[in-house]
Amino acid sequence: MIFMSAQRPLDVLNRALGSSVLVSLKGGRELRGKLSGFDVHVNLVLEDAEELHGNESVKRYGTMIIRGDSVVFISPAG
Amino acid sequence: MIFMSAQRPLDVLNRALGSSVLVSLKGGRELRGKLSGFDVHVNLVLEDAEELHGNESVKRYGTMIIRGDSVVFISPAG
Amino acid sequence: MIFMSAQRPLDVLNRALGSSVLVSLKGGRELRGKLSGFDVHVNLVLEDAEELHGNESVKRYGTMIIRGDSVVFISPAG
Amino acid sequence: MIFMSAQRPLDVLNRALGSSVLVSLKGGRELRGKLSGFDVHVNLVLEDAEELHGNESVKRYGTMIIRGDSVVFISPAG
Amino acid sequence: MIFMSAQRPLDVLNRALGSSVLVSLKGGRELRGKLSGFDVHVNLVLEDAEELHGNESVKRYGTMIIRGDSVVFISPAG
Amino acid sequence: MIFMSAQRPLDVLNRALGSSVLVSLKGGRELRGKLSGFDVHVNLVLEDAEELHGNESVKRYGTMIIRGDSVVFISPAG
Amino acid sequence: MIFMSAQRPLDVLNRALGSSVLVSLKGGRELRGKLSGFDVHVNLVLEDAEELHGNESVKRYGTMIIRGDSVVFISPAG
Repeated sequence: MIFMSAQRPLDVLNRALGSSVLVSLKGGRELRGKLSGFDVHVNLVLEDAEELHGNESVKRYGTMIIRGDSVVFISPAG
Repeated sequence: MIFMSAQRPLDVLNRALGSSVLVSLKGGRELRGKLSGFDVHVNLVLEDAEELHGNESVKRYGTMIIRGDSVVFISPAG
Repeated sequence: MIFMSAQRPLDVLNRALGSSVLVSLKGGRELRGKLSGFDVHVNLVLEDAEELHGNESVKRYGTMIIRGDSVVFISPAG
Repeated sequence: MIFMSAQRPLDVLNRALGSSVLVSLKGGRELRGKLSGFDVHVNLVLEDAEELHGNESVKRYGTMIIRGDSVVFISPAG
Repeated sequence: MIFMSAQRPLDVLNRALGSSVLVSLKGGRELRGKLSGFDVHVNLVLEDAEELHGNESVKRYGTMIIRGDSVVFISPAG
Repeated sequence: MIFMSAQRPLDVLNRALGSSVLVSLKGGRELRGKLSGFDVHVNLVLEDAEELHGNESVKRYGTMIIRGDSVVFISPAG
Repeated sequence: MIFMSAQRPLDVLNRALGSSVLVSLKGGRELRGKLSGFDVHVNLVLEDAEELHGNESVKRYGTMIIRGDSVVFISPAG
């Protein structure tokens, strides 16, 4: 087994600052945008945010503050 | 990679004071109004609030206090 | 841009004491009554409360204590 | 405007001790009984409790402890 | 009006120790058993627990630990 | 009435360590496995875990960490 | 009865670092990936994450941060 040091979830978010992320919300909505901020509650700030259905953009929002409580997962590779 | 300093979510809200914001609520309701206040729980005060279906206004409310617990996201560009 | 000082959500509630408010609850129920008290959890006391369907009163309750956890928004102009 | 001093929600509950109250629960169930106790979490004790459909009693329970987390509102006039 | 001293919800639970109780859960399930323990979170221990549909027993469980978070109400008269 | 000393819920869980338990989750899923650990949040560790439909095993998982927040009840006799 | 020392849930997660885990989310979604980090809230970091329907991969995500609040269970053997 290869030794692996653990990554803290908020450190991984921190490294994603300035990159595009996919955000999956409770209830199934998906958003995509450039992560420009977050806090310890996993509240997020996205720039150039858009809502996705499947992989298609269906609505554009500009800046968006997302409450952490609504977030299921965040994928920086999105 | 371009260096980016993180924006704190509440600072982004603070800059939106006095501007029109779109508020998406749990369960899918959407509200729009002028953000005139908020607190650390993301409780919000909107003025000239209206409820939207799609992009159309379906009801007008005047002043409105929204509990942060019901908020999914807030978009100042809305 | 016009300068705007922020209003705290609980201060806005405080100014609504003695006035009629519309209260929207999780799950879609709507109540209306005279706001006669509240606390920091946004627990509310209404007098002459009534439940609304659309804009019509469908049930009258007298005094009512509403748990803040069930509240989506409160509109003093209601 | 008439001056009004605010009533605290728990004080209103306290005055309802010994009286019949209507309790509306998350999910739509309604209970009625004599309020014989409560605590700061709005956990309630009812005596001679009964479940209502519309205004009709459909089941009798005797004493009942209700968790505050399930309570939407309490109406002493019920 | 008759004077009534308030009963604390956990004191009422305490008096029910050793007796049969009906427990109503979020989502509508009903359990019945002998209450043999609880804590401040209203986590419960039942002995000879059974699940009910209407008033009929549909499944027997022996000892059961119920998380308080899932409990809607507890009726010692059940 | 027989005197009964109360059992604390976490003590009952502690006595179930090493035994097979049935775990009922929010949303209706049922799991069964050997309880090999837990903490104060009622997070659980099961070994040789399997998911049940009715009383039949439909999927095997090996070790499983269950978040307490998803647990409705745990029955050591399962 | 064989003596068994309890395993703490977070210790079991810690031993799974670097291994493939199956993560079951509220609402029924299932994810699989290599666990590369977690914190006390059971927020998780997965690498090479994919979403599963049944046992088939339906979408690939790369790195993913999952909020603990959405997690039902984690199975290192998945």
